[in-house]
Formats: sequence, C-alpha cells, structure tokens
Amino acid sequence: MPDVLDGDAVDAALADRGIAWSREGSDLVKVVRRTGFAGALEFVNQVGALAETADHHPDIDIRWDTVTLRLSTHSAGGLTDKDLSLAAEVDELG
Amino acid sequence: MPDVLDGDAVDAALADRGIAWSREGSDLVKVVRRTGFAGALEFVNQVGALAETADHHPDIDIRWDTVTLRLSTHSAGGLTDKDLSLAAEVDELG
Repeated sequence: MPDVLDGDAVDAALADRGIAWSREGSDLVKVVRRTGFAGALEFVNQVGALAETADHHPDIDIRWDTVTLRLSTHSAGGLTDKDLSLAAEVDELG
Repeated sequence: MPDVLDGDAVDAALADRGIAWSREGSDLVKVVRRTGFAGALEFVNQVGALAETADHHPDIDIRWDTVTLRLSTHSAGGLTDKDLSLAAEVDELG
C-alpha cells in the first residue's frame, strides 16, 4: 500500500513537478476542455489507456466538450504517489 | 425546438416503450455496470457513437466499472422526444 501524503506534501510535489492539477482535500482534480464531444471522448480514451497501464483509475465526468478528472487512492484513504504519477502522465497528453 | 414533455407524459412513454431509464425531475438517468474499467469505457464509446449520430449528448460519469448517464434537452428546458429516442437506443446496446 503506498503511503498517504499530507496536503502540504502534495502541494509541494505539484509545484516541484509542475503538475497542473488542483488539490481539493484528498483528491486531485483536473478540468480539460476539448473540441466538442468527440474531442472530449478522445481525451477520455487517452486517459483510460494510461489508467489501465497504471492500474489506477480516476473518476471521469464528461459534459459535452469538458472532462473533469478526479484522482485519489481510495484503498489508502488519501493521496499517494500513484495519484501524482498518473496526474503527471495525463499532463503529458497536452 | 422539440416540445418539452411533462413528467406524466415522460413516465407514460417510459412504460409504454419499455425504456429502462429513471426520471429524476427533468432528467432521465441510467446507471450501467460493466466488467471493470475497460468494460465501462467500451460502453461509453458505444454511447458516444449513438450520441454523435443523434447530435444529442448525455452527461456521462465513469466510476471504475460503473457508468451513470443523464439525459435532458437543455436547449428546450426539459425532457423531449430526443431524450426518449436516445434512451431507447442506449437500451438496445444491452
């Protein structure tokens, strides 16, 4: 089980590693807008491939052209390096 | 612009046409569970293809193996036959 990071540690890691997600309590959240529903769905499939490889899956909400991702390590009861790693990989999608 | 249907008309149509969605106020809601995240994402892509063809898009929430779909005709301010039609098509996915 990965170690749970406290809020300060998460905030520091986000800043140090340039990860463009927001911390909301024990979740990391990212809102991405694409071109239309098709663009949003394409992005979700890209995220899905990363999630399957990592065996770690964000909550995903699709609203037409906008996708909200929410990450937490529920099995550990908070944010862990698994969340930071997947967040950074999603950022690389551009 | 399609006509907005009142709640009784929607409930009657759901029953008459055997559409397996729940009405929650001015939304139709369906919760579908698939096999794992991959199964959920496959279902979302199937729904997405129907939505693009219909040019009518549900809100879609993915939680690991569970997908929640929420339909309403926001431009009309309520439920219309566009929602019932897409709901029926989604049901045909099985």
